[in-house]
Amino acid sequence: MEGPTTLNYRKNSSKGNGVKPVESEVPGKLETPPPKFVKTSNLEFNVLASEKLPNFETLDLFHRAVYPFMFLAQCFAVMPLLGIRASYPRKVRFAYKSLPIIVTLIFMSATCIIFLGMLTHLLQIGISAKNFVGLVFFGCVLTAYVIFIRLARRWPHLIRYWTKTEMVFTRPPYEIPKRNLARRVQLAALAIIGLSLGEHALYQVSAILTYKRRIQICKNITAEPTFDDYIQRNYDYVFQLLPYSPVVAAFILLINGACTFVWNYMDLFIMMISKGLSYRFEQITARIRKLEHEEVAESTFIQIREHYVKMCELLEFVDSAMSSLILLSCVNNLYFVCYQLLNVFNKLRWPINYIYFWYSLLYLIGRTAFVFLTAADINEESKRGLGVLRRVSSRSWCVEVERLIFQMTTQTVALSGKKFYFLTRRLLFGMAGTIVTYELVLLQFDEPNRRKGLQPLCA
Amino acid sequence: MEGPTTLNYRKNSSKGNGVKPVESEVPGKLETPPPKFVKTSNLEFNVLASEKLPNFETLDLFHRAVYPFMFLAQCFAVMPLLGIRASYPRKVRFAYKSLPIIVTLIFMSATCIIFLGMLTHLLQIGISAKNFVGLVFFGCVLTAYVIFIRLARRWPHLIRYWTKTEMVFTRPPYEIPKRNLARRVQLAALAIIGLSLGEHALYQVSAILTYKRRIQICKNITAEPTFDDYIQRNYDYVFQLLPYSPVVAAFILLINGACTFVWNYMDLFIMMISKGLSYRFEQITARIRKLEHEEVAESTFIQIREHYVKMCELLEFVDSAMSSLILLSCVNNLYFVCYQLLNVFNKLRWPINYIYFWYSLLYLIGRTAFVFLTAADINEESKRGLGVLRRVSSRSWCVEVERLIFQMTTQTVALSGKKFYFLTRRLLFGMAGTIVTYELVLLQFDEPNRRKGLQPLCA
Amino acid sequence: MEGPTTLNYRKNSSKGNGVKPVESEVPGKLETPPPKFVKTSNLEFNVLASEKLPNFETLDLFHRAVYPFMFLAQCFAVMPLLGIRASYPRKVRFAYKSLPIIVTLIFMSATCIIFLGMLTHLLQIGISAKNFVGLVFFGCVLTAYVIFIRLARRWPHLIRYWTKTEMVFTRPPYEIPKRNLARRVQLAALAIIGLSLGEHALYQVSAILTYKRRIQICKNITAEPTFDDYIQRNYDYVFQLLPYSPVVAAFILLINGACTFVWNYMDLFIMMISKGLSYRFEQITARIRKLEHEEVAESTFIQIREHYVKMCELLEFVDSAMSSLILLSCVNNLYFVCYQLLNVFNKLRWPINYIYFWYSLLYLIGRTAFVFLTAADINEESKRGLGVLRRVSSRSWCVEVERLIFQMTTQTVALSGKKFYFLTRRLLFGMAGTIVTYELVLLQFDEPNRRKGLQPLCA
Amino acid sequence: MEGPTTLNYRKNSSKGNGVKPVESEVPGKLETPPPKFVKTSNLEFNVLASEKLPNFETLDLFHRAVYPFMFLAQCFAVMPLLGIRASYPRKVRFAYKSLPIIVTLIFMSATCIIFLGMLTHLLQIGISAKNFVGLVFFGCVLTAYVIFIRLARRWPHLIRYWTKTEMVFTRPPYEIPKRNLARRVQLAALAIIGLSLGEHALYQVSAILTYKRRIQICKNITAEPTFDDYIQRNYDYVFQLLPYSPVVAAFILLINGACTFVWNYMDLFIMMISKGLSYRFEQITARIRKLEHEEVAESTFIQIREHYVKMCELLEFVDSAMSSLILLSCVNNLYFVCYQLLNVFNKLRWPINYIYFWYSLLYLIGRTAFVFLTAADINEESKRGLGVLRRVSSRSWCVEVERLIFQMTTQTVALSGKKFYFLTRRLLFGMAGTIVTYELVLLQFDEPNRRKGLQPLCA
Repeated sequence: MEGPTTLNYRKNSSKGNGVKPVESEVPGKLETPPPKFVKTSNLEFNVLASEKLPNFETLDLFHRAVYPFMFLAQCFAVMPLLGIRASYPRKVRFAYKSLPIIVTLIFMSATCIIFLGMLTHLLQIGISAKNFVGLVFFGCVLTAYVIFIRLARRWPHLIRYWTKTEMVFTRPPYEIPKRNLARRVQLAALAIIGLSLGEHALYQVSAILTYKRRIQICKNITAEPTFDDYIQRNYDYVFQLLPYSPVVAAFILLINGACTFVWNYMDLFIMMISKGLSYRFEQITARIRKLEHEEVAESTFIQIREHYVKMCELLEFVDSAMSSLILLSCVNNLYFVCYQLLNVFNKLRWPINYIYFWYSLLYLIGRTAFVFLTAADINEESKRGLGVLRRVSSRSWCVEVERLIFQMTTQTVALSGKKFYFLTRRLLFGMAGTIVTYELVLLQFDEPNRRKGLQPLCA
Repeated sequence: MEGPTTLNYRKNSSKGNGVKPVESEVPGKLETPPPKFVKTSNLEFNVLASEKLPNFETLDLFHRAVYPFMFLAQCFAVMPLLGIRASYPRKVRFAYKSLPIIVTLIFMSATCIIFLGMLTHLLQIGISAKNFVGLVFFGCVLTAYVIFIRLARRWPHLIRYWTKTEMVFTRPPYEIPKRNLARRVQLAALAIIGLSLGEHALYQVSAILTYKRRIQICKNITAEPTFDDYIQRNYDYVFQLLPYSPVVAAFILLINGACTFVWNYMDLFIMMISKGLSYRFEQITARIRKLEHEEVAESTFIQIREHYVKMCELLEFVDSAMSSLILLSCVNNLYFVCYQLLNVFNKLRWPINYIYFWYSLLYLIGRTAFVFLTAADINEESKRGLGVLRRVSSRSWCVEVERLIFQMTTQTVALSGKKFYFLTRRLLFGMAGTIVTYELVLLQFDEPNRRKGLQPLCA
Repeated sequence: MEGPTTLNYRKNSSKGNGVKPVESEVPGKLETPPPKFVKTSNLEFNVLASEKLPNFETLDLFHRAVYPFMFLAQCFAVMPLLGIRASYPRKVRFAYKSLPIIVTLIFMSATCIIFLGMLTHLLQIGISAKNFVGLVFFGCVLTAYVIFIRLARRWPHLIRYWTKTEMVFTRPPYEIPKRNLARRVQLAALAIIGLSLGEHALYQVSAILTYKRRIQICKNITAEPTFDDYIQRNYDYVFQLLPYSPVVAAFILLINGACTFVWNYMDLFIMMISKGLSYRFEQITARIRKLEHEEVAESTFIQIREHYVKMCELLEFVDSAMSSLILLSCVNNLYFVCYQLLNVFNKLRWPINYIYFWYSLLYLIGRTAFVFLTAADINEESKRGLGVLRRVSSRSWCVEVERLIFQMTTQTVALSGKKFYFLTRRLLFGMAGTIVTYELVLLQFDEPNRRKGLQPLCA
Repeated sequence: MEGPTTLNYRKNSSKGNGVKPVESEVPGKLETPPPKFVKTSNLEFNVLASEKLPNFETLDLFHRAVYPFMFLAQCFAVMPLLGIRASYPRKVRFAYKSLPIIVTLIFMSATCIIFLGMLTHLLQIGISAKNFVGLVFFGCVLTAYVIFIRLARRWPHLIRYWTKTEMVFTRPPYEIPKRNLARRVQLAALAIIGLSLGEHALYQVSAILTYKRRIQICKNITAEPTFDDYIQRNYDYVFQLLPYSPVVAAFILLINGACTFVWNYMDLFIMMISKGLSYRFEQITARIRKLEHEEVAESTFIQIREHYVKMCELLEFVDSAMSSLILLSCVNNLYFVCYQLLNVFNKLRWPINYIYFWYSLLYLIGRTAFVFLTAADINEESKRGLGVLRRVSSRSWCVEVERLIFQMTTQTVALSGKKFYFLTRRLLFGMAGTIVTYELVLLQFDEPNRRKGLQPLCA
């Protein structure tokens, strides 16, 4: 593509104050032109195949941090990739003719059946704002499956580009923070997974207890509380399309669990990506801070700026791949938060219903806030170096510092929802205000239903 | 106007690294001072008359891309211009005493009659939020006619200025993207036209079937289902002012079709303009990208910046001419989207009504989103070069790059609605939020009407 | 204050390419430090007293443009100043012990009485959203009186500072646009005054006709339609505090007229101020445009920037004096637009009522839009030079151009409402959206009242 | 930390035009790296211990200005610190095992009991939007206690850092404004304390009178109006958990008073902090203004910019410590303003109720506006120097001025609510609009309750 003479900014960085150019093993001609987001796989990741190969397992890389959770997700048919467990990102690949894709398609078909069953059911009994929620849930999950497949196709290229970009941050002068990337991702992921398991379990407990109590109390129901009967009553919408059999029952429970997993995994995935990105910006900030009271050569600033720009490009690339997922996750979260908030003033029959409702509501709000805040951290972190840069003495001042400050000040470094909005802390504030408005109007709208109170138990 | 010595920035661009000044055939003294938007036609477009005349038919020019659709629009009395089919933009002219103007006036008068008929009709039966929609429709179309006439007066000057500005992009170093401008405009236009034809046809089918079924079922209606009767019932408002005759009936159908065309053409026209503008910014971005790993002379950046500034000026000029149309189109789209969304929960009588309603609603939302996104693309595209410019090495760094980055960062390059708002992706997000709020409030407001359900069929 | 050696930026401007420093007759030591907004009157405006005194009557100055309307306003007790008709701004002064102040106090007391009468009346019959409007009207007028008195105190200083700042724009290289300042102000003022007179007249006609028709039709009212009876019925709230007598009746009509004048004058005054400011920015833009294809010396840019900065300072100063009035005017206009829009769907009894209502509504919306747009013009105009400045060739490029572009880009040059918001076109867009939201909610709120329809005429 | 060679920007500042470096007694190596917000107390504040110790009591320092009010707050168990009355900030310290902490814990437990009592009470009678307000009040106070304790832990470090930063502003070339910091803080604090005392007293008077009148009038109540009975009726919710005894009664009154104090002190504290910060920015502005017509050496601008950057860092540090409190205060104020506005149209029984209600409402709105405006002043003040800086002549122009202007223009210097929003004047405008929307929707929602009117007195 370009001869060695054209690599001017690379050579430039090495003519500094003796700082060794940090990426000599990534020759320029392998550089993918990121803005065009080359997707062709002929871009051989041959650096990794060379003899200088670092030991990937010990490096603090994003791929190493997320692969356990991506593998777990594959078990639920999310992001069908091959070689995800390999320590070398270049072994990760996507193939249409592969087991994961088949699993995914099976899960998708099953979800589709449930979705259609629900649609049929609702068209029969009449769609209302209340029962619409089920459609939204399964619709979101289906869309998420599709988005994850599309993401999976881009993932091998993305994770290689990511790894190449972050290679430089695994070596001095960058330091690994007290809590490394893998640890951070783990903490977040385990928290989400744990809490969502709790939510799902509580949902089942609440449903089963409600079912049992109803049969105990109602005299007009003579059926025994059996597993078969429970499934048939609780997932009645599925049996619009399928006949009942214990196998189908088990299958429904499985698919329901998988759907719940996917529904939670969307947010978890965004969170992991966000942590991976903000971690690197944090390292840049840390490096800038260390320079605070020193006399700094321009070459250092050139290097820092170069890394900063590269991270921004990586972010842009990731954003272009993730935007659909972010948009879906935001819409989904906003809808469910609004829906659940609306039910706050509803009367419920049993204490277990209250416990489930409040747990579920708080979990939902917490997860939404968490995913937003984690994503907004990228934006916060990318600007944190400004304070030190503004204190650079007039002696160390140079065009490169000016450019870096200008870029940090004017560029919105953040994940976005298809560029419609950027995930920053200010957005969250604006959204909170909007949700309150919606809620007030909806509460008023829902007033008549709420006044009716509980329906008779045994009708 | 100014002697050759004053053309400093032009000469400047030629003292670069041997890049041939790209616009030698457009002498500086023909340069219209765009900010003043000279409208006088004594600005002879004599370049095109000179012997160096390029073959316009083969060039990738905006005029060549849009003229088929502008000619089609003229058949519906929109934008009365002469010589629109000519390959030379300078043959395009506007004259008050011309056939197109007469056609336009006839169509306008006819639309006016229908509008007044509807107004009379509504004042008789009482204006409500529901039946107000017809007035808005014909009012919008009338306003659009007027705006298009005013635009037509400015068009000859505008298209010449546009052609002169984009001349430079038809030659190296600019390249023609894989899909050229004419093709892009064609695709968008044919899609819109096809879908709107479908919408109009479905409307007629839905109306006719509803009419027939009613006569079949209702015993108190003894009339035979004839064309005359159908027109009289369905367009009853026109016959407030006109007597019925088969000629009038045909005329009504024609005018209704023309109105529907104009109503769709507003959006289509904005879309074509947007594509024409963003296409050039895309070319600039592509050129900047090719420079990525090269050592670039300042003169190249001077030239790029000059072209960028010229495109911004062209945009400003186009915006000043188009703003009224954009404002009208936005208001119109927002009104109809709100109106149709409000009807989502209404009960309809026949399946064909549902089919038409959902097709119409989705088409409307799709068209609105499409026109917004196409317009917002200008804004997105104008900033896309920033990534590469930020990576310019400190060796290639120069004041011109700094100026270009500063301008790209701080200037809002986008079409606007009379400068009240700029058509960017963020605006669309904000508008979506606002529409949801309106919708929630309106739904609540409309609740009593909705609860009444369907009116008796045979009343 | 400072010796000649410190006047560096002034001397600087004269060492340009032979352009004569334009303000030699305004020695630097008279320069008021505008950011501190010195209010002490010991700042003798002695330039004007010197022998070089220009003929103020022929100059295109703001004071000369507005004094007729300010004098007219004084007749209605607004802005009690002495010497307003003088052609020299320095003869304008404010004194507590003066005739205008006394007149103002009389009018204020009278308005106060009416306000209290209305308050008493409303407390008796119960305050509702509907009848609250009278209180708001008189409350606004009273507040306006107070604000205008405070403004009058600052006016002498302000108009001198203004005149000094704009002196430079009355001479070459600045040119007087086709339509000069006085003409522009006149047109705007006469339009507002004419339309508001129409509005007030129509109000009286509507009230009188309604009164007459009611007596004609109602059999239970035996009174003759006399002037006394009309006043007593129509202004019943005043007679809570005052006894009826023909003198009082005439007085009420006078005060009502004065209040209407003040209510309109608020907006007119803001409009005149805005025109005065944007006019100068327009001149700067025009000057910049003339430089377009020329080789420009840095000294010229120094001078232009200096004038630009001075205008910004003048704007800041004017804004600090006017902000309360702008805030009041905005709140007042928003309230009345919302109030009147709410009445759009109300049934009225007589055609004259409809005529008055629609005239009044359209006038109100038009005036509000007009005042906003005129004020927003300052903002638009202040940025219009950017286009040309961005085209400055790299040869003419200098630090001064950079500073000017940076300032134009980043500074919000606009009148503000106490810095809470800036009067820009974008604000108007946002406000329109907010008004629609309010209106939708209020319409719903008002639904029960509206459904009741007209009250019986003769109750 | 760093050797003398690295202190380049410090040395730099002294190589100016003979201006003595202003902070020679604060050696660089004591400089805490503020962005990391070192909390370790091993940062000995040994400057103050040195023999050069200035007389702190006479200095215009923030600590000296606020300590009386912080000491007063300690009497109500807010911010448990030791040595707050000392004139040396370094004597201020926090210890878990100390009397203030114990007092705080006692008060917190007491508040907790009341809160739980109220919760129990409300769960019994059913939570509604109306009676929810009590829970919010005590919940806010409890949260405030916790936040204040966390703040107290950071306070010793913060106040030392603050004092060190502001030391430079107590000496020339900075001047002390006409009204010094202590005076400003005093005025604000005394106003808030006085008005809140009035509010609390009026509340008691209103409650007692209402209680007495009810017993006098109602024949079905035979009880004598005693203190015991009054407490039992008025604070009935407490006696859900506690038995009645005169001691408990006194205790309730005390805790209620303390809660009211804390509720007001939140805002007061933010106000004092804001005044402390904006005061310094005012001094910087004043210094810049004095330079207006002078020829200024670059070293002066270096120094000014350094001080400006330090103030920004102090602000950032304070903001990171205060953000939780600001968020709580905003939410609290918004909730109570909305709640009280909603009651405006409610009928009350006795005149004293009206007096209390309106006093309380106006006080609440006033306090909210006051705290917002005071905080927004930081933002306004930080930008006020821009006007003069923009007028710097091209001769004095240097990179340092450019950097200072760039920073002032692009940085949002303001307190924030956890970075979700910044306390600027524009925010207040946006919030006002939002409150109006909420109010309109809520009023409509509350309509049925309001129509019921007063409940029977003797039920």
